[in-house]
Amino acid sequence: MACIFCDIVSGRAEASRVHEDEQVLAFMDIRPMTPGHLLVIPKQHATNLAELDPDLAGPLFATAQRLAAALRRSPLEPAGINLFLADGIAAGQEVFHVHLHVLPRNPGDGLGLRGSFQWPHRMTLDSPAGQIRNALPR
Amino acid sequence: MACIFCDIVSGRAEASRVHEDEQVLAFMDIRPMTPGHLLVIPKQHATNLAELDPDLAGPLFATAQRLAAALRRSPLEPAGINLFLADGIAAGQEVFHVHLHVLPRNPGDGLGLRGSFQWPHRMTLDSPAGQIRNALPR
Ligand SMILES: [Zn+2]
Ligand SMILES: [Zn+2]
Repeated sequence: MACIFCDIVSGRAEASRVHEDEQVLAFMDIRPMTPGHLLVIPKQHATNLAELDPDLAGPLFATAQRLAAALRRSPLEPAGINLFLADGIAAGQEVFHVHLHVLPRNPGDGLGLRGSFQWPHRMTLDSPAGQIRNALPR
Repeated sequence: MACIFCDIVSGRAEASRVHEDEQVLAFMDIRPMTPGHLLVIPKQHATNLAELDPDLAGPLFATAQRLAAALRRSPLEPAGINLFLADGIAAGQEVFHVHLHVLPRNPGDGLGLRGSFQWPHRMTLDSPAGQIRNALPR
């Protein structure tokens, strides 16, 4: 199965790289939603969160945190940062190799989470809380 | 300074808790964007990513990964999951204690990342890549 992100890791495909270590690679998103839009990926292929080695969770998120700090120190000087990950087609995943978006934000950039929220009663929150708790691995 | 999430950690404020360990706490978002919307927070107060102990990056993200798996196994059965974090007012941050959203997704739920993207030339990507690389801590 061809995977564009595995091709970037191996060097077969071009990318504007920002950071690389033994476990993760970070590069510019080729379709940036804002200037400086970055992706952080595990170098080892994982289609989705379920396949991702939990030991890579730390390196992935810590790298996104360091990139957020670097973006703020850089001439791009974003006023804020969003981290975003899509797991599954229904969540907007388009490349099936886990990737964490690091999105520089500025007032009026038009970006953000689309949707509305509810104010449910506590009982309506306690019920799914119990269901999710019961589904957690012991 | 009052912090609602610190109050939840200490038990002074109510929450529908789903997971707790030494470092992180997960509970239902009181204003869910979709049913099962969770927040994962460090128990130690950190206003933003810059203040977050990098050693907590792993526990935070790995907990979100485990919650995503639990959500998929639970009766809520979402078709997908989004992870989302807002760092700074310009990024939509409203509670100033770091929190990672875990958002169950289903087709037609109206949720998603709002915005459009560009297809810049490689040079337009290489230039900020260099700027961000130079701003990374050594
Ligand atoms: Zn891959
Ligand atoms: Zn706090």
